[in-house]
Amino acid sequence: MDSKRPREGIANIRRREVKKLFKGLGKKVYSDIEEGKFPEIIFPSRSVRNIVYDEGLKQYILGNTSVKRSTHNIKHIRPFTQLIWLAFFVNKLVEQSKTSTLRDVFYSAQAYDVEFVDQAESDEIITDLEAVLSRAREDFNVYPEERSAIFGDLTIEYTVPGYEGKRLNLASHPDGYLIGPSLSTADFVDTSAEMVLAVEKGGLFTRFVEEKVHKRYKALVIDTAGQPPRSTRYMLKRLNHELGLPVYVLTDGDVYGEHIAMVIISGSANAAHLRELTVPSGKWIGVWGSDIVKYKLPSNSLTDLDIKRVHELKRDPRYKGGVWQRELDVFLKIRKKSELEAFAKYGLTTITDKYLPEKLDVAKSL
Amino acid sequence: MDSKRPREGIANIRRREVKKLFKGLGKKVYSDIEEGKFPEIIFPSRSVRNIVYDEGLKQYILGNTSVKRSTHNIKHIRPFTQLIWLAFFVNKLVEQSKTSTLRDVFYSAQAYDVEFVDQAESDEIITDLEAVLSRAREDFNVYPEERSAIFGDLTIEYTVPGYEGKRLNLASHPDGYLIGPSLSTADFVDTSAEMVLAVEKGGLFTRFVEEKVHKRYKALVIDTAGQPPRSTRYMLKRLNHELGLPVYVLTDGDVYGEHIAMVIISGSANAAHLRELTVPSGKWIGVWGSDIVKYKLPSNSLTDLDIKRVHELKRDPRYKGGVWQRELDVFLKIRKKSELEAFAKYGLTTITDKYLPEKLDVAKSL
Repeated sequence: MDSKRPREGIANIRRREVKKLFKGLGKKVYSDIEEGKFPEIIFPSRSVRNIVYDEGLKQYILGNTSVKRSTHNIKHIRPFTQLIWLAFFVNKLVEQSKTSTLRDVFYSAQAYDVEFVDQAESDEIITDLEAVLSRAREDFNVYPEERSAIFGDLTIEYTVPGYEGKRLNLASHPDGYLIGPSLSTADFVDTSAEMVLAVEKGGLFTRFVEEKVHKRYKALVIDTAGQPPRSTRYMLKRLNHELGLPVYVLTDGDVYGEHIAMVIISGSANAAHLRELTVPSGKWIGVWGSDIVKYKLPSNSLTDLDIKRVHELKRDPRYKGGVWQRELDVFLKIRKKSELEAFAKYGLTTITDKYLPEKLDVAKSL
Repeated sequence: MDSKRPREGIANIRRREVKKLFKGLGKKVYSDIEEGKFPEIIFPSRSVRNIVYDEGLKQYILGNTSVKRSTHNIKHIRPFTQLIWLAFFVNKLVEQSKTSTLRDVFYSAQAYDVEFVDQAESDEIITDLEAVLSRAREDFNVYPEERSAIFGDLTIEYTVPGYEGKRLNLASHPDGYLIGPSLSTADFVDTSAEMVLAVEKGGLFTRFVEEKVHKRYKALVIDTAGQPPRSTRYMLKRLNHELGLPVYVLTDGDVYGEHIAMVIISGSANAAHLRELTVPSGKWIGVWGSDIVKYKLPSNSLTDLDIKRVHELKRDPRYKGGVWQRELDVFLKIRKKSELEAFAKYGLTTITDKYLPEKLDVAKSL
């Protein structure tokens, strides 16, 4: 892989592109003023009516409706100013190679007397900027506080200050590496892995490492820690896209687990403006409702809330057909759910020795 | 440090001691039977009435009351059997160098037809075994699922299978290293650090790494991710005890932050049977209520729930006197709370450039 590697790493290319986008945004405002016009910004509307399901892409995307923020309109001046300030602020972050959290942005605005009533308002403007640039906020150095982890034979090369050019192999710490800003922006140098296994739970992640799943199945193992933080979805996308690794998702056997897999694979309606956060070729390999029956797993009864959620997802276009709809129906029929740890009834290694290879085999036909 | 290092690592010593304790427990049961007696186990009672505050140790400990689990008493047979099964199960874990979670234990019991109504019951028996052995469950390889992280110049040497003798420097991945079973049982080889800084939030952890707090203040930085998981408290204890590093705790400026610091330093009533999970010399360096005023931090009003919690802690003997009681009183007086990120109002690096050194200075007089 090393030989085919471009001379400029992916992370640097992305940084250069983002800076260019900021420059373009700034130029637009200046040229409006120079032409004697009120500055305005036009970008895709994120309103519910403009979020549409794309059958081909199998994900929610934004439709053709745009919104205009014009300084000509007194009601727009507040969000326009907030947006321009945000672009100024995060452009500086990118230039200085510093990162920040959503919350940092909220408090930082106070230094500039830019008013946000609460963090919800600043979060909203950050999402607007994502839509303006068609870029995830991680691309302009705003990261979630939550972290999940990765383990396996992947050599990376950092691009963050103080670590440029340094390499690290992600199999060298068996408790796993946090996926934060440094790992998200690292270049991938070399790997012997042939797949990515995303698991919902930290306990399972540790079990997989202990049972050498990374070697036996040539896998990179990722702990999503429940619904994965955005930077982890981004990482999954990169592993799939840049290294061509298939992604398999293993969750608890319940409707929430199924939805974790769905969001990794097809994205969420909230992020319809960001197509790059999906792994369309990813596979949910369990725990399926039918696995609860087949593997005689210890289980709990569905609660009323669980059942309500199943019905909600049955109406969601992403769940139309295939394993998605079929397993929702199984959950409804058997009225049961099981956790990944339930396999421990048959020994701590049953999940890695028996279930995992069987389900990877089944996945080929999905 | 390397030269003074004992030939057998701390982790191996602990493993040997735990195995010896299990052997002793088994022998006791066998010898009872051989002597024609009903087997019984006697251990310190964890009932509320036996949890007492020790003024000298400044922590909750168990009093002198013991409980007896005797197979002579039909009511005791269930918990007695569960306890012996658990000892058998975790002894096997230790022998095979495998780890498990609380939840794994619950499901594993079903493989042996040992009944637990729910996980709460198995968790309770695990805590009983801690009291029987006077050892934290991490010593017999039962780990929490939650993980927090560490970063800084500390070279460790693993003792887990497949990694024995391998060394890693914890400054080599700037997103941080998860504190899981491998790190918890690693031997400490070398460090240039002179203190440990435990911070409550992942965002701050990343900020500290970016601002090179580990170099500027010769610190190991730990992200406790809220109330730290037990394995992280254990790590803090080890860093303090084995390396002699002072521990400073930095939290949000509210009653919950103050309590996070208190639990790290003085332990919790729930773990009164485990004295080793405390860092009595640790210092809470902020954010204090008085810092909110002094540093003019953006703040929110205390809720009724916050105020109720302050009054609860005011009655807690651990909070008697010193900075603990004083700052509770300040929170009550100003009726405000602030988050760590609030410093961003004065620039993203104000917390590392100004607040941190000032508070480390103040800490000397605590």
